[in-house]
Amino acid sequence: MNKKVYVGIDLGGTSIKMGICSVEGSAICEIEQPTPKGHYLEVLSTFNQLLGELLLQNGLLMDEVMGVGVGVPAFLNVKKGFVYNTVNLDWKDVPLKAELEQALKLPCFIDNDANTAALGESWQGAGRGASHLICVTVGTGIGGGLFLNGDIYHGALGLAGEIGHLAVRPKTGRQCNCGKIGCLETEASATAIAFYAIEALKLGKATTLQEKFQSIGTITARDVLDAAKNGDPVCQEIMDHVSYNLGFALAQLSNVLNPEKIVIGGGVSKAGSFFLDPIREQFRMYALKKVAETVEILPAELGNSAGWLGAAWLVHRNLGHNGGKIAK
Amino acid sequence: MNKKVYVGIDLGGTSIKMGICSVEGSAICEIEQPTPKGHYLEVLSTFNQLLGELLLQNGLLMDEVMGVGVGVPAFLNVKKGFVYNTVNLDWKDVPLKAELEQALKLPCFIDNDANTAALGESWQGAGRGASHLICVTVGTGIGGGLFLNGDIYHGALGLAGEIGHLAVRPKTGRQCNCGKIGCLETEASATAIAFYAIEALKLGKATTLQEKFQSIGTITARDVLDAAKNGDPVCQEIMDHVSYNLGFALAQLSNVLNPEKIVIGGGVSKAGSFFLDPIREQFRMYALKKVAETVEILPAELGNSAGWLGAAWLVHRNLGHNGGKIAK
Repeated sequence: MNKKVYVGIDLGGTSIKMGICSVEGSAICEIEQPTPKGHYLEVLSTFNQLLGELLLQNGLLMDEVMGVGVGVPAFLNVKKGFVYNTVNLDWKDVPLKAELEQALKLPCFIDNDANTAALGESWQGAGRGASHLICVTVGTGIGGGLFLNGDIYHGALGLAGEIGHLAVRPKTGRQCNCGKIGCLETEASATAIAFYAIEALKLGKATTLQEKFQSIGTITARDVLDAAKNGDPVCQEIMDHVSYNLGFALAQLSNVLNPEKIVIGGGVSKAGSFFLDPIREQFRMYALKKVAETVEILPAELGNSAGWLGAAWLVHRNLGHNGGKIAK
Repeated sequence: MNKKVYVGIDLGGTSIKMGICSVEGSAICEIEQPTPKGHYLEVLSTFNQLLGELLLQNGLLMDEVMGVGVGVPAFLNVKKGFVYNTVNLDWKDVPLKAELEQALKLPCFIDNDANTAALGESWQGAGRGASHLICVTVGTGIGGGLFLNGDIYHGALGLAGEIGHLAVRPKTGRQCNCGKIGCLETEASATAIAFYAIEALKLGKATTLQEKFQSIGTITARDVLDAAKNGDPVCQEIMDHVSYNLGFALAQLSNVLNPEKIVIGGGVSKAGSFFLDPIREQFRMYALKKVAETVEILPAELGNSAGWLGAAWLVHRNLGHNGGKIAK
């Protein structure tokens, strides 16, 4: 069997995304299904069923699959393939790599989902060609992954990349879920954007979102972005706050890590240059001159496919053509 | 010839430190001499002369030397062995590796001096045994080196590790030499400690340093530390400011890099726990829980020998027993 493929799985609290790509990283097919709640063995059985379906639908054979990578929303030990605890699944102390290999009868590799999303963008997305990359996802929280020297950087305990917990307002900010004050996540996530808009509405500030808020009872980050784009001064002020905090935090990180690129993903990044240009401007103000001149800040390209493609890269990294050596 | 040694050189603006160590990293001998001013060939000729002297004095032969590593106070390209420009030497665009190899007739390797100091502590100093390490030197400025995955991390242009330019007071701080505002270096270096004390003296604040300042006309960071230790409230306040800024900045970095250890060097670190304990306390306040619980903050151990030992490690890294693979 000559032609080989990799399988990648992005395991989320709500849904499972599975895809198959060539050894060069071209997506061949993908499938999505709700995540079964309950015991992790149910999830593994869903993996098995989805893999069978995908192969059948695309005329591929099990023998052609070199291995399976899985991105898990969890605190885990990559080398041991062990999951300590998960974020939105009720798992604890699961020897996931071993269990996966038994269930799927294929070599399996795991990493956390923030890292696999970063790996996807590094391999096939906006980060293509860069060896040193910072990936940030601005969503409900702010997640991150560091791609350094051509591989994901895990740090001592696998905790590296917690960009959302850089303190941007350590004295004056709000309390974060992590227990600290004024984290980037509490100031610039999609949740924070909506929070600041709702706070302004409650204070009776004049904004075009008033009507929507009164009829629906809530506001999304996307609403705030759209209103800011249309010139709403209250929403513009909120977005200025967000740009400053993201630009400032990314500049700090870049002064120390000297990346080639920064890739920003998550729902709000779809607003493109309206969202990114002010971040770039703030970044340049706070980055060292050579860093400011050379770092590219780019929107993520792969959307929901980044996670499974990055998970598939784990197979490439471990079993790829160059004999298990780190390669892009 | 069985027994082999490495030579390390720490090239400073004022003096050259050269040492010889075993392949295990035990220092055998070292020598120091003022740096000749002028053309870089004069420096290379001094290297040659010092190497001859060291070998002769210690009964070693040229054939026993596996290679020479040099730490240079410069912006350089490690792979190409090329120096773009230096900080305290008047060099520009020097193909240093090639010139060194021609002058010394040995394999030579270069890196910048902040990195070689970090490598020395990682290999034989306070960082022994750690694969992920942040090194900080609190001196005239604040320098840094990142030892990640068992090797120095350079970043895209070799600029990584600029810990001194993390902005801790981006809105309210003083102007830094780098052009930005409120860098860690302007708030917590030895220069900053002395600056804040002199400022307090000029404002007529009641401090025990008054007499010394009036008779000598200046104050050192060490004076401020000693006075703080003896209960001088003005100096204690300055040291609180320094501890907060160092602890805060190192916590930010650790939340993202998840190191095992942080090693703090430079003159003021010799004050030991009086200097380090308040930094540790502030660090714990601003680091994520697991990071705060696991990262050790330690004083540098090697003093002035860190630079040449780290430079010698460059030979170990490239020509060591494990065939040029990254190793500690």
